[in-house]
Amino acid sequence: MSDQDYMQQAYNEALAAYEEDEIPVGAVVVCDGRVVASAHNQTERLGDVTAHAEMLAITAAADELGGKYLDECTLYVTLEPCIMCAGAIGWSQMKRVVYGASDEKRGYTRYAPSPLHPKTEVTTGVMKEECEELMKRFFKEKR
Amino acid sequence: MSDQDYMQQAYNEALAAYEEDEIPVGAVVVCDGRVVASAHNQTERLGDVTAHAEMLAITAAADELGGKYLDECTLYVTLEPCIMCAGAIGWSQMKRVVYGASDEKRGYTRYAPSPLHPKTEVTTGVMKEECEELMKRFFKEKR
Repeated sequence: MSDQDYMQQAYNEALAAYEEDEIPVGAVVVCDGRVVASAHNQTERLGDVTAHAEMLAITAAADELGGKYLDECTLYVTLEPCIMCAGAIGWSQMKRVVYGASDEKRGYTRYAPSPLHPKTEVTTGVMKEECEELMKRFFKEKR
Repeated sequence: MSDQDYMQQAYNEALAAYEEDEIPVGAVVVCDGRVVASAHNQTERLGDVTAHAEMLAITAAADELGGKYLDECTLYVTLEPCIMCAGAIGWSQMKRVVYGASDEKRGYTRYAPSPLHPKTEVTTGVMKEECEELMKRFFKEKR
């Protein structure tokens, strides 16, 4: 399984969010080649600003693995995390983060250059076009 | 009820965390003079790095009020929020944030100067000494 394969699974979660009229962001957490958590944005459904895909996936992964640190895991997420999610990724000591589209407005890199754990490796741009296009389609339909 | 009174309630939550061997941070959310949510750090108990007092209080307040935006609310928290929590406070559009002790290591002001909503008013240093002392006592006992 490649980064592309796992990102496809995160993208499928984003599509599920889209179908539920949520901002279409999806995430999966992978540990030793196994998807231990997958989630999509549920802020509207739960009426909770903290219910971003990454937050739900981090909580679920820790629950699945029985430990709060995810230092052997990779998070795949379709959109660059916001600073809330980047902060959570930092606390989790995530080994690696892979994201698809950049978020020019709310992405963490604009607000906080180094919120992640120093050891966390970051890869960007996997399935960038598809992830971007889904976000654009969602917001275009909202206008 | 004054800021001091509400911070005392947040401090009581921090004491509850302390008794549970959690890093002693407590928070309450106040809306129109009513405490709509109160919570303390539960990262160990829940095995979840996202279970900070502020996150739990924001989720509970939105649930209690039936809306995800808290733009008529004040968050009282014993310690300066980290960037994860500051990001959540930003998304919630919290009207006002009051915190006790500063967090020299993980406080949001060191990482992201402006993660909050531009309209959010911030007050610092309420019951600063008590909040600091509780944190110091906790970590001293851990050594």
